[in-house]
Parts: sequence; structure tokens; C-alpha cells
Amino acid sequence: MSPKIVRVSVRDVRFPTSLEQHGSDAMHTDPDYSAAYVVLETDGGLRGFGLTFTLGKGTEIVVCAVQAMTGLVVGKSLEEIVRDFRGFYRLLTSDGQMRWLGPEKGVIHLATAALLNAVWDLWARMEGKPLWKLLVDMSPERLVSCIDFRYITDVLTEEEALELLVKAQEGKRQREEEMLREGYPAYTTSCAWLGYSDQQLKQLCTDALKGGWTKFKVKVGADLDDDVRRCRLIRQMIGPDNTLMIDANQRWDVSEAISWVSNLAEVKPLWIEEPTSPDDILGHAAISKALAPLGIGVATGEQCHNRVMFKQFLQAGALQFVQIDSCRLGSVNENLAVLLMAHKFRVPVCPHAGGVGLCELVQHLILFDYICVSASLSNRMCEYVDHLHEHFVCPVVIHNARYMPPKIPGYSCEMLESSVKKHQYPDGDAWKLYPKK
Amino acid sequence: MSPKIVRVSVRDVRFPTSLEQHGSDAMHTDPDYSAAYVVLETDGGLRGFGLTFTLGKGTEIVVCAVQAMTGLVVGKSLEEIVRDFRGFYRLLTSDGQMRWLGPEKGVIHLATAALLNAVWDLWARMEGKPLWKLLVDMSPERLVSCIDFRYITDVLTEEEALELLVKAQEGKRQREEEMLREGYPAYTTSCAWLGYSDQQLKQLCTDALKGGWTKFKVKVGADLDDDVRRCRLIRQMIGPDNTLMIDANQRWDVSEAISWVSNLAEVKPLWIEEPTSPDDILGHAAISKALAPLGIGVATGEQCHNRVMFKQFLQAGALQFVQIDSCRLGSVNENLAVLLMAHKFRVPVCPHAGGVGLCELVQHLILFDYICVSASLSNRMCEYVDHLHEHFVCPVVIHNARYMPPKIPGYSCEMLESSVKKHQYPDGDAWKLYPKK
Repeated sequence: MSPKIVRVSVRDVRFPTSLEQHGSDAMHTDPDYSAAYVVLETDGGLRGFGLTFTLGKGTEIVVCAVQAMTGLVVGKSLEEIVRDFRGFYRLLTSDGQMRWLGPEKGVIHLATAALLNAVWDLWARMEGKPLWKLLVDMSPERLVSCIDFRYITDVLTEEEALELLVKAQEGKRQREEEMLREGYPAYTTSCAWLGYSDQQLKQLCTDALKGGWTKFKVKVGADLDDDVRRCRLIRQMIGPDNTLMIDANQRWDVSEAISWVSNLAEVKPLWIEEPTSPDDILGHAAISKALAPLGIGVATGEQCHNRVMFKQFLQAGALQFVQIDSCRLGSVNENLAVLLMAHKFRVPVCPHAGGVGLCELVQHLILFDYICVSASLSNRMCEYVDHLHEHFVCPVVIHNARYMPPKIPGYSCEMLESSVKKHQYPDGDAWKLYPKK
Repeated sequence: MSPKIVRVSVRDVRFPTSLEQHGSDAMHTDPDYSAAYVVLETDGGLRGFGLTFTLGKGTEIVVCAVQAMTGLVVGKSLEEIVRDFRGFYRLLTSDGQMRWLGPEKGVIHLATAALLNAVWDLWARMEGKPLWKLLVDMSPERLVSCIDFRYITDVLTEEEALELLVKAQEGKRQREEEMLREGYPAYTTSCAWLGYSDQQLKQLCTDALKGGWTKFKVKVGADLDDDVRRCRLIRQMIGPDNTLMIDANQRWDVSEAISWVSNLAEVKPLWIEEPTSPDDILGHAAISKALAPLGIGVATGEQCHNRVMFKQFLQAGALQFVQIDSCRLGSVNENLAVLLMAHKFRVPVCPHAGGVGLCELVQHLILFDYICVSASLSNRMCEYVDHLHEHFVCPVVIHNARYMPPKIPGYSCEMLESSVKKHQYPDGDAWKLYPKK
């Protein structure tokens, strides 16, 4: 008997990270890393855990959106959902009344992500496998049956997707073994948040180098002189052979992005991340074209709101690194579509992580990407940020700057109930100690 | 003394329109036309009324978003807001924590629209003018000071915007008089909703022709044979010289849109509206290119979520008719940016209306566009739908298929308190009679 979903609960969980400027960047100066945290309860007792990441204020809006969608989920059995997962995805994203609020973007799509992440977690637990392994063991036919190809068939049809997956079966077992043995390469963003002092930067770089890290991301975009100084400092710390990326978090207009980044070319960044509005496909294309002669690529995606946008970024040559996000897109279903489109265009995928639970979630997707889609590690790495993992039941395991594949069944985003209770907003103990936003 | 905003109230108001298939189309088969309805109260007793339009389910999410933003509004004086309206717009749309939920898209942007519409209403009432007249009387410098140019300067700088507005001052008084005398041309969508029977279509067409209507829009996209039959019927009813437009409400993928619309070319539609995903700029460009030889333009915009998207639609030649929406974009401020960009690209603006209050609101913007920006009526017309006006204190006035300029101070979206009370969801009397969604 397949478990039937009998109840959906959703909670507003916030961590007061703004107190120490963790996560600070040019556009988000005081984030309180937060989550709308979903638990699916089934009649058999098995539960599924999912979340979407937020920055504090407004998390209650996402909670409200999840509640508005629970009627589409409660009463369905897992078997009924996964038998026609594409149909279920469509049901959540194309409700005739609610799609007006998106469609497939903003609050309503973040809520979809939280719910579907929990469904995938439930499925993986039911099969007794970590999510990445559930995906790796699925047939190409089954995988494509989870994808809604609406609005992307001009770039990727179901038949083409199937063909790509069938082709990538070759060498799959070896790659799986390789990952289990060595893990997936990561880079760190933890050394250089915008709010950190030089002293902090130096210390964190020193520690990271000792820990085996070779790839570093620096936040930029608030002040050019300050950026030059900070980037030189980091480049000096890490030496010429390690990799440096810079991230402006949407701070600039198109021409400003080009001139600002040109001024930072001396520190040889691999990419400039989010140079401008996440909606500006043609703007990113212009920036890509201007920066290519300097050897600097453009990376974006953490706020790219759906597969239709990623499709166009790829069509327009507007990015050289695809940064998928496990909580902004419509969960695994929509990420599968993006991984396959990126593969078709031969653009490497370097997932966005950090936040609350993003590392825990996205590691599964990038492992699947390597084993079953891209079969390449060239110019590929997954973001890593080293805080808030202690609140998860199965936190990520990093060895020698690599993500080690999770072995416990599920999608790794179950939180410790004690953490949830303490950080529930506004009544948890953590919010009795700190000032309310 | 400038009135100070002391309280913001927001209510969930729904009309059970799905019972009679009003508003039904290929993607929204059973909408209950609704609104998140905002009232700003000031210390002087003057009030400002604003709303954003929704389709029923999920309106409570927008209400929640408005509540989350009230802290940014309460305590501010009108003078303080309009003195730096660009700054206030930026404050609402770029909150360091809440922008993660958009930015400038979906629920959070709909809430921004509702709030800012109420601020503009308050301002117009304070000045004792209808909104369109407030805008017409503003200096070009003052107008551009309301616009956030972030992310659009590659297409329109503040200086260029100013230049366009100064240039269009010529003939302004005559155009204002012309509008007061003759009104702004409209087209009707009320004759051919997808859920209507042939008998209904015929009767409604006959009545509309008698009422002086010459431009008609038909919903298509559910079934090709049915579309051919219905479009032929309407073309036969209205004759060869009247204007016919068709609207697919995002039903197709790119290649499907091209072939489907090609099959309807015989009825000579002026435009195909929303052929595919509202996010697919490059898709719309491909459709535009394919349909140009057939003399059919592409129209879109009612779900185009911000000025950055409109910028690209214009850059890519992806639309031939710009359909602004008074409740999806960030109110007058963002619509000003879009009107100016459209003018720069010489693309006509034909606003989206209908819904709840959209006609009442958008008439002000298109009057301003004609008088102070475009100075042209060629290929321009404003949508009109003939229901739910009875719930407004100052409903639109249509004479001979033209919008007659409102004369009463404000932005025309104050609702009758009795209507609001009756249709409040879920406790209003209207929802005691009808089945709850």
C-alpha cells in the first residue's frame, strides 16, 4: 500500500543571522536566513520534509501560500502522485485561479518548491534511498515523465531529453563509484561576505586553505575601491593558481556591470555572478559578450525563476555558468529540465547553495547531474557555505573541499525539531532574545 | 499640513463570476474575479483606495503580502512619499529581506501595486484631481522623479525620458480637450469568452454593434476547430471592416502558436494575444517574426511582471502591441517607465483591462499616454469588459465605445462599502449563497 498524505504542516523558521552579517551582500545587507518548512504526514506514519529558503521578513507570506496549496496535496497517495508526476506538477503550477499570482514565479513558486521538495523526500524515504540515488536508479523514461515540457519544447522536447539521458547511461556506474569515493568538488563563499572585516577575511582564507579549499567566492558591488582592495587581498591570500569568483547580487545596470567588472579583471575572476537584474536575459547577454575577451564568464540562476527563463538565458548565450537553486525552481521536476537544457547547450552547472538547507538539498541534484547527465567535472563545482548545518538531522558532509554523497534515505532537509521549535517566528525562544524585525 | 498615513487596511473581496463563465479562457477556466483591496487612512481623515486584481483562490496570500509591507507605509506623510517617490518605490521593492520573494514579481509585486495605487489615489484626491489630470499637469521633471530607472538605463535613461516628455508637451492642451470631448477608443472582450455558447456570442455581438462597438476580442486556444468556427462566426457578425483580435491566454508552445494562429489567419485578426508563456521573450520574438508576413501582430503584457521584462520584449521586437496592466506592474511609477520605453520603440500601448477595477484604473494611464507621451491614436485602444463596474463609487463611463475621462478626484478604484462587505471572503453574504472554492 502506498502511503497517503493526510496532513500538511508548514512553519515559519528564522535564524537571526543579520546580527553577525553572515550572508550580507550588496543587495541583501541584513538577511535573517529563514525557511518555510513543510512536513507531509501520511497514514502509514512515514513523513516527508521539504522547505524553501527565505531571508526573514515575508516568510509568513510563503507559509500562507503553502497553506493555500495544501488542498491540492492532502488526500493523494504517493503512488498517485509519482505515477503521473508531470500531471501533479502541472496541477500545482497551473491552478486556474492561483496561476494568476505567478505563474511559476515569486511566492507561489517558492511554495511549490517547498511542497514538492517534501514529496520527493517522501518518495526517497519510501524507496529507502537518498534522493540522488533514487534519481540515478530511475530509468530515463521515468525521469522524463517527471518533467513538464510546456514552454520549452522549442529547445528541448521529451524525445530529445530521453535521448540525452539514454546516451549518458554509459559510464554511469563508474561515475557513481567515483562520487562515493571522492565526492563532488565544492567552492566556499564563507570567507568573504560583504559585511566582514579585512582581519576576518584573512583569517577565514587562511583557515580555508588549510582545510583544502581551492575555490573562493567574494561578494562585490557596494564600492569599487573597496572591491579592488578586498579582491586583491583575497587573490594574494589564495595565490595565482586557485580559483576566484566574484558576486554582485544584482547591484548594477548593464553598462555599469561591464565597466565595474573590467576594473576587477586584474584579479582574474572565473565568473561575475548576478551582475544585474535576474530577469534581464538580454542584459546578461550583453555583459557576457563584453567580458568574454577578458576571460570572465557570467554566472546567474539563484533568482532565475523558472525553466522558461533558463531556456532563454541559454538560447541567448547570456550565461556561461548555470546556477540552479533547489528552492526557487519547482523542485526536482523543474531542475531536471534545466539540467538537461544546460547539457544540450554544453554550459556547466554550478549550483547555488548556502542559506538554510540549500547545501543539503542541491548536493543531490548535482550528484545526479554528474552521474546521469553531464558526465563532466570540467569548470563545475557546487557552492558551499559553512553555517546553519547543525540544525539538520543529516547535515552535509564535506571532505577535502568535496561534498560526500549522502547515504541516508531522503532529500536531507529534515530539521531537528528542537531547532525548529527554538527558531519558529515570532514565538520561538531565539526570537525572545533578539530584536524582532 | 500633508496628511500622514496612520493605518492601512486590506481586505479579500471575491465575486463568484465562475458561476456563469464570465472571464473564462483557455488557461483560466473558472475565475472568481477578486481583489486585494487596500484603504489608506490618514490623520486628516482623507483616505486613499487601491487594489490589485486576482482570480479568487490565493487572494489571501496577496492580502498577507500587503500586511507584511504596511510597516514601510504607516507613519509616512504623503508629502514625504511624493517628494522622493522614486525612493519610496525603491523602499517597497528593494527591502533587503523581502526582495528575495520576487524581486518585483508575483505576489510581492501585486501587493506593491495595490499599496502604491492607493498612494496615487490619495495624492490625486489631495490635489482635487482625477489621477490622469494630476499626471497631465505634472512637469516632466516631476514625472521622471517618480520612475525607478534601475535596470533599464541601457534602453532609457532619465535624461532621455525627460527629453521625450518635454518634446510631447507640444499640442498637449488640444489633446486634453479632444479627450474630454470625445474620449479614448475602446474595444470589447465581453462578447466572446470561451465558455459562452454560439447563441450568446451572436446576441452579444448584435448588441455591441448596436452600441457602436467596432473592435472585438475573441478567446481562443482550447480547440482549433472550435476556434475556426467561433472566429468565422464573429467575423461574419462584425463584417470585414471592423477589427478582430484573438487571445490565447498562454495556451501554446512556440511552434504550436505559429501553426495554430496561421490556421486562423483567414479571419484577419489584428493581433494574437499571449500566444505562449508571459516570460518567453525570445519565444514571442520568434512568433512575431513568423506571423508578420500574415499581417498578424503579437500582443502581450497583462502578465509581464515588470519594466525589465517589457524592456526586453521591446528590445527583441517580441511584441507589436504593449499591454500594460495597472495592477501587475508597480503602479503608476512603473507604468510610466513602460509607456516611455514603448514610445521610444514606437510600439503602440493597448492596456489590459476587465477584471475588478482594471478599467477604472487603467483609463487614467492611457489618457495620460495620449495627452503627454504618444500623441497618437493609431492602432491604439483600451480593453473594455462590461461587468462588475456597479461595485465602484465612480465606475467608468463609456460613450460610443470610448472611455470618457473621469472628472472626480482620485484613481477611481474606491469600491462601494456595501459591495465590499457583501463579497468579503469567506464571510460575506455572497459567499454564504455560493459554494466556497
